[in-house]
Amino acid sequence: MNFQTGFVANFGSRIGSFQRSSNLGTSRRVTRSAGRVRMAASVDELKKVVGYKSVDDYVTSGMVVGLGTGSTAYFAVERLGEKLKSGELKDIVAIPTSIRTKEQAEGLGIPLVTLDTHPVLDVAIDGADEYDDDLNLVKGRGGALLREKMVEVQAKKFIVIVDDSKKVPGLGVSGAMPVEVTPFCWEYTLNKLKGAASVAGCDAKLRMEGDEPYVTDNDNYIVDLYFEEPIKDANAAAKEILEMVGVVEHGLFLDMTTAVIVAGKEGVEVIEK
Amino acid sequence: MNFQTGFVANFGSRIGSFQRSSNLGTSRRVTRSAGRVRMAASVDELKKVVGYKSVDDYVTSGMVVGLGTGSTAYFAVERLGEKLKSGELKDIVAIPTSIRTKEQAEGLGIPLVTLDTHPVLDVAIDGADEYDDDLNLVKGRGGALLREKMVEVQAKKFIVIVDDSKKVPGLGVSGAMPVEVTPFCWEYTLNKLKGAASVAGCDAKLRMEGDEPYVTDNDNYIVDLYFEEPIKDANAAAKEILEMVGVVEHGLFLDMTTAVIVAGKEGVEVIEK
Repeated sequence: MNFQTGFVANFGSRIGSFQRSSNLGTSRRVTRSAGRVRMAASVDELKKVVGYKSVDDYVTSGMVVGLGTGSTAYFAVERLGEKLKSGELKDIVAIPTSIRTKEQAEGLGIPLVTLDTHPVLDVAIDGADEYDDDLNLVKGRGGALLREKMVEVQAKKFIVIVDDSKKVPGLGVSGAMPVEVTPFCWEYTLNKLKGAASVAGCDAKLRMEGDEPYVTDNDNYIVDLYFEEPIKDANAAAKEILEMVGVVEHGLFLDMTTAVIVAGKEGVEVIEK
Repeated sequence: MNFQTGFVANFGSRIGSFQRSSNLGTSRRVTRSAGRVRMAASVDELKKVVGYKSVDDYVTSGMVVGLGTGSTAYFAVERLGEKLKSGELKDIVAIPTSIRTKEQAEGLGIPLVTLDTHPVLDVAIDGADEYDDDLNLVKGRGGALLREKMVEVQAKKFIVIVDDSKKVPGLGVSGAMPVEVTPFCWEYTLNKLKGAASVAGCDAKLRMEGDEPYVTDNDNYIVDLYFEEPIKDANAAAKEILEMVGVVEHGLFLDMTTAVIVAGKEGVEVIEK
């Protein structure tokens, strides 16, 4: 496995691996690479492991690749740049999901295109804020949810890279579920979100940056929804929220994930749907 | 009827009126004001008739009123300003649906508020580009569809004012059905719209203003969809279009209308649902 190359040195030991297959009734396949770890890996090291592994395992020459945004996706972009520079990968074009990622990719010399000319991607790689048993996600705490969803929904394979702190028993419990809204009458939209039946009991806050509302790459605002209990029916919530007139997009990424690559202190687990 | 006051002089004759009730199976009530018209009214005169009538018949003191955008709504705003100035109406606050309408209302001294503080409106009055037998609408050729929908969906009564050229046998046949999209990868979104099953066969064009894309009050673009046949299932189209990630809102206003006030050369017809 590519996993066992250079960067694994961060773990402080060469990690053994084993594979396990099981049928959990959801046609899910679990592939686990684990082993004795002599030195605890830092969160950044874990992010690097899964970021690199996603490129090593899912990107081949000639592909159109979607590049996510955030501290974990950062390492996937880094790895892609490295492999293009070394010549190990060729004829790649990539579509960034944020201005930040675009700048990183440009700095690494990764050829960039857009959905306008390349509406179908072979693979998209990105982090997530939460994932559940069904590989459904909450994304967007970094603010790039709209462009991420636009790009990732067009990918034949959507690979999610996370550390194991992102696993939740139900979506919405570990922090904000972001909703991108039009600035016009944002307070009204916030109150509508708060009152929506499918997310009853949630708290809603306009995301701020200092004293000003946080502004997305698309010149919109973000309303963060906070839950005490997991969202009961994420599909119903997604539908109700999207139908609100002031809502542009939301951070529930449902039925999109091909595989989640999870780094924990015990090693790396790949959960495929 | 208020209809028979001053401004009707534009018709060149005093117009007789009669009322007719019928049950068309959709609990629709038709009230018709018609009669012999000695001089043909211009389109602008017809717009003025319905604009004034909407305020005369549906706005009373103390109301929160939504003000539409466009050449017909212009006259409703004008009438509201006139009646506030004369003291015939009092304690009105209004919510404009565009920067243009805001400026007109400010010029007339109409007190303005927003949805943020007044999320429920007593009545909203606006024009439309098309209306069908079920009082469903196409709106947004003037570019204000998002703010219009945000405001009008919150109104207890939504009064649509049109001349009879706006009647269509099915939505989408008389011109563009506008879709507000995020500028990011608009061409991709345009192609997705074009390929959507529920609007199969439509043509899609980015709305331009000179050499540049037309920009909405919300800093978005508009993709205009053109149909050769009426949209078969407007509810299905609304749903499919809204689910697209790059789409902010669309110009199908379904199940929102309380009444359509139609001016034709034969007089004025009020169709209530």
